[in-house]
Formats: sequence, C-alpha cells, structure tokens
Amino acid sequence: MGATGAVGQQMKEQLEKRNFPIKDIVFLSSSRSAGKEIEFNGKTYTVQEAKPESFEGIDIALFSAGGSVSEKFAPEAVKRGAIVIDNTSAFRMDKEVPLVVPEVNKEDLRLHKGIIANPNCSTIQMVCALQPLKELYGMSKVVVSTYQAVSGAGIDAINELKAQAADFDNAKDAEAKVLPVKSAEHHYPIAFNVVPQIDQFTANGYTFEEMKMINETKKIMHDDSLAVAATCVRLPVVTGHSESVYVELEKEATVDQVKQAMTNAPGVELMDDPSNQVYPMPLMTAGLDEVFVGRIRQDLDNPNGFHLWVVSDNLVKGAALNSVQIAEALIEENII
Amino acid sequence: MGATGAVGQQMKEQLEKRNFPIKDIVFLSSSRSAGKEIEFNGKTYTVQEAKPESFEGIDIALFSAGGSVSEKFAPEAVKRGAIVIDNTSAFRMDKEVPLVVPEVNKEDLRLHKGIIANPNCSTIQMVCALQPLKELYGMSKVVVSTYQAVSGAGIDAINELKAQAADFDNAKDAEAKVLPVKSAEHHYPIAFNVVPQIDQFTANGYTFEEMKMINETKKIMHDDSLAVAATCVRLPVVTGHSESVYVELEKEATVDQVKQAMTNAPGVELMDDPSNQVYPMPLMTAGLDEVFVGRIRQDLDNPNGFHLWVVSDNLVKGAALNSVQIAEALIEENII
Repeated sequence: MGATGAVGQQMKEQLEKRNFPIKDIVFLSSSRSAGKEIEFNGKTYTVQEAKPESFEGIDIALFSAGGSVSEKFAPEAVKRGAIVIDNTSAFRMDKEVPLVVPEVNKEDLRLHKGIIANPNCSTIQMVCALQPLKELYGMSKVVVSTYQAVSGAGIDAINELKAQAADFDNAKDAEAKVLPVKSAEHHYPIAFNVVPQIDQFTANGYTFEEMKMINETKKIMHDDSLAVAATCVRLPVVTGHSESVYVELEKEATVDQVKQAMTNAPGVELMDDPSNQVYPMPLMTAGLDEVFVGRIRQDLDNPNGFHLWVVSDNLVKGAALNSVQIAEALIEENII
Repeated sequence: MGATGAVGQQMKEQLEKRNFPIKDIVFLSSSRSAGKEIEFNGKTYTVQEAKPESFEGIDIALFSAGGSVSEKFAPEAVKRGAIVIDNTSAFRMDKEVPLVVPEVNKEDLRLHKGIIANPNCSTIQMVCALQPLKELYGMSKVVVSTYQAVSGAGIDAINELKAQAADFDNAKDAEAKVLPVKSAEHHYPIAFNVVPQIDQFTANGYTFEEMKMINETKKIMHDDSLAVAATCVRLPVVTGHSESVYVELEKEATVDQVKQAMTNAPGVELMDDPSNQVYPMPLMTAGLDEVFVGRIRQDLDNPNGFHLWVVSDNLVKGAALNSVQIAEALIEENII
C-alpha cells in the first residue's frame, strides 16, 4: 500500500534484493496513482486502487501511504486476515501495537493483534546503536541532535532542494513550497540552509518528530524511565540521516568497549578511525543497508558519558528495509 | 593584519559601519597580497607587506592571518607599543592572554599584557547565550552539536561548495580539495553532505575545533568545573553557524525565564515563536550582528535542563565584529 511513493519503491527493491518468499504480490495506491506499472522480479504489475476487499487472501500487507490511509485501510486488512506492517505514525504509540526494530525487540512481534508498526526513521537508526550499549552497561540518558535529509519529506522535497541548489547566488530568495512541512503556513528554502523544524510543533515546544524520537525510543527499548531528549533539524542532504548522540551509561565503559559493542551489534557497522579520517557521512552511505557509527568518544567530564555519530539511509534501514525485516522475522519466528 | 582575507574584509566593514574612531589605518598582509587596493571610508589604501616595523606608532593591531603569522608578528607589534587583538588560535589558551567576548568577560581586558585573543567563532555565539543563564541560575553541564558553515574554512571552501552544488546528480563524485581540512590527507565533498570533522583530530578522538569550544568556553566563563562537550560538524551552508545546545542549570528555571534572559542579554536576540514557525536559520541571519536564539525548550526529564538553538554569522559576531567590539571596549574602559 503506497507502492508508487519513495518508500514504496524502496520496499519493492528490498523484497527483490532479499529474495523474500512471495507467491503473489499486489501493488496498491490511491486512485491518483492507480494504473501505473511496476516491474517486480522481471514481471510487470499494474498498480491498483486500494479498496477494503483488496486485502482478501493477503498474508502480509506493507503500508507506507500516510497515516490517514493506514487508519482507514489497516483495520480492513486485519479483518481479512492479513498482518499489517505499517510505516506511518498512525499506530506507533498504540499500546496494542508492537513497535519493532528486529535487531532490538523482535520478541515484541509475538504480541501483535494484526498491526505491527515500523518506527520513525530517525528512531530506528539510533536504537540500533543504543540497544547493545544498554544491554551491556545500562543507560540512563540520551540527548540527540539530528541532521536529517530531505528525502524523509518525499520526492517533492528532493525536487525542491535540487531546484534551489541550482541558484547558489540567490539562495535566500529561492522559492519554497514544500519544506519544512508541506501543510504548514510558512515554507523556507533548504538549499544552503539549516531548518530546525521537522513536522509540526506540539504544545510543549517540541516538534512531533522530536516527540516521536523520545516516545518511540522508550517504547522500543522497553524503558519508560530512560531520559531521552531530541532536537530534529533538516539539512540540504538528499538521503541519509546523521545523528549526534550523547548517552549516559549506568556503568563505566571504555571507548574500546563501546567500539566492540558496535562491531558486535547486528545491523551496525563501526566506521571509526579518526587518524585516517574515517567516519560515516550520508552522501557516502546512501543506499546501503547498515547503520554506521563513528566518532565514538568518552565524555571528558563523565566517564559514563559517550558521544556517537550515527548515520543511516532513512529510506532503507529507516523505512523499507526495517519493514521487510519485520516481515522476514514473522516467518522465521513462525508467527505467520 | 590579514586585510584581504574573508575576516579581514569583514573587520574593515565593521570599522566603517560602527564609526570606529580612527586617525590613521594601515592594511597589512603577506607579500602575496601586498599591493592590492582597499577602499575604506571613501579613501583608497594600498595593502602593505607586514614587517616588524609596520607596527611603529600603531595603537591597536587587529590580526586575522593565521596562527603562524600571529606568532611571528604579534610580539613585534606589542614590542612597539600596540595592543594586539588576535583572531587566531595562537594565544587563546595562553594564561597571560585574556580571551574576550565583551558581552561576557569585558573585565578580563584589564589583565592584558599586550595581546588579547578573540575566541573561536562557534564558542563566541554559544557563550553569549549561556552567560546570562549561568549568572541567573548557575550552570553545571553543556552538550553542544554544531552545524557549521563552510565560510569558516575561507573563500576556497565557499568556492568549492558552489562548484559542487552545481552538479546535483553527481554529488558523490564531486571534486574536493579543501574540506574538511585543506592540509589533511583526505578531502570529501560538502555539497549535499554532512562532514563530522572540523580541523584536525587530537589524540583523544576529539577534533581541535571541539577542544577549542570546550576549553575556550571554560576560560571565558571563568569556570574550569563547567562540564562542556562538543561535536563539531560541517554542512553545505555558506555563512552562519547553528548550534543545538543542551544545558543543565544548577537551579530550576522556566522556559519563560530562559526566554526573558535571552531578551535581556546584550548582543542576543530572541527569535522563538514555534506557533508562527519563527526560529533562527543561518540563511536568513547571514550578515547580521546578533546572536539569535530560538527553539527554547525545557528538558522533559530534568527541570534544570534546557535545549536552545543558537545561530550567528561566524564571520561577523564570530570573528570581525567581536574583534572590533574588543577594540571599542579598550577605549570605553580607558584601557588604551
């Protein structure tokens, strides 16, 4: 569901690349995109307009077409026997819905009642890096500042950045219609700029994106007492979110121990060699599956404090790959 | 000294704009730039090659031509009776040299022995926002992640960004010769990228830029026990550094009190109205004198913790303006 969008396309590619065991597949969309053709494993499929009965006979339904579409169609799919893996924020904080990053809390899948939520992109990559540290050393506090790519706001945002970037000398007066939030009153140029707003603001002064990172991290890591604070910022990068993460552990650790934890962590790749200028950068890791971690430093004042630089492709591990991994885990764990 | 560089040009403009009381002025540079002409207050001056005797009869010498030039010529200027205001890192951590942001520690000027150091750009804007909070509520901890513009690395870095940005579709393979550090072994594209390295790495895994922010903040704010941690990151922005700052106060405060402190702070402008999408962005504040603060939020777990978004032009308040303000303070306080 949402087959023609940026994440939908990535989902299709991940299913192909990972040889997901598929007997039959149906590509769904709104009426606007219905009729388009999609190539999948060498065959051509026509995208169909989603209707409640579209989900008859479906085992697993991957949703990525916006929260209101999920709210409307996910219950219809569940009613017809499908397990829904939903990439929107519609059900993430629902107590009845597991919110899953397979490397972190695969066991929560067993609690599903039809819908499984895929976390926010910026949350997924962070918890992949944090969970191994929490398991080994305990964790009391996380402060994250993000450096997020425009692809999280869709194809229109990518095109807007491209058009603005072409006029270097008039960046300040560039036309802006999409970012920071399409439905918001004011739009600001993103090329050669930094915009400290992702999603709308909530009443407490935090944005919804920041509250997603805070609340989802606690839910996925099963720790309501974990202190999490986030500042979410949009940058002129096409794809790949970066995060400057400060974490306080409950036990003292060394930089080497933290590096070893990252080396051992599933889905994580340590990329940390300052003497050779090796650290992750979004332009170089776009399109890759892993969560890359570098710039690991012990805090100079608190031996339990560590600073990490975490980069991953927000459309891949941050969205499509994680959804497909959830589907794979359902099979591996005999849940479906 | 360093009249033809990016900061030198800004110093000239600030001296003109602020009607600095000047009887005579001499523009100095290396032999390479000597002979160029500079317009100042309607007159044309020829840039002269700096020699020790260039400083005969000079009251105030503004230096911004690199650390090695300051190390060579600043003592010569002092020997001849000048007070040197040095914008390089050469003397900043020297115990005999005051490191001054006039809004924060003007009184340190009285301790000078000929040389006064201008802090690092990313430090200056942060301490302008932090000092009023420290005075009112005490301060125990600062964690900052920066979003820094390429102009801090000079004209060559700006030109490199411009050239790379013109080829959106081949950003990953763009030619890079300047950033992250001109003298470093590896260079990476900055357009559509995020590079977590500014300056070279020190042995502890922090960069020199990060250690400057940590050490200079403690020195300027007169508090060696203040815990400061920094992660410094370069972005495809021309001018204007942004900072995501988390601060822990010793006493509890409210968001309104923190906002009021920013409103009252000299050199700081509060720009914080989330409901109208008002927050500082570097593209919009480039060229302006103030340090802009927005996105002020209380931490959700620690009532003494606050998050701030601090933006200022790294060439203006971060360099040239602060140097000229130091010169003004020397006159106002009858130190010269």
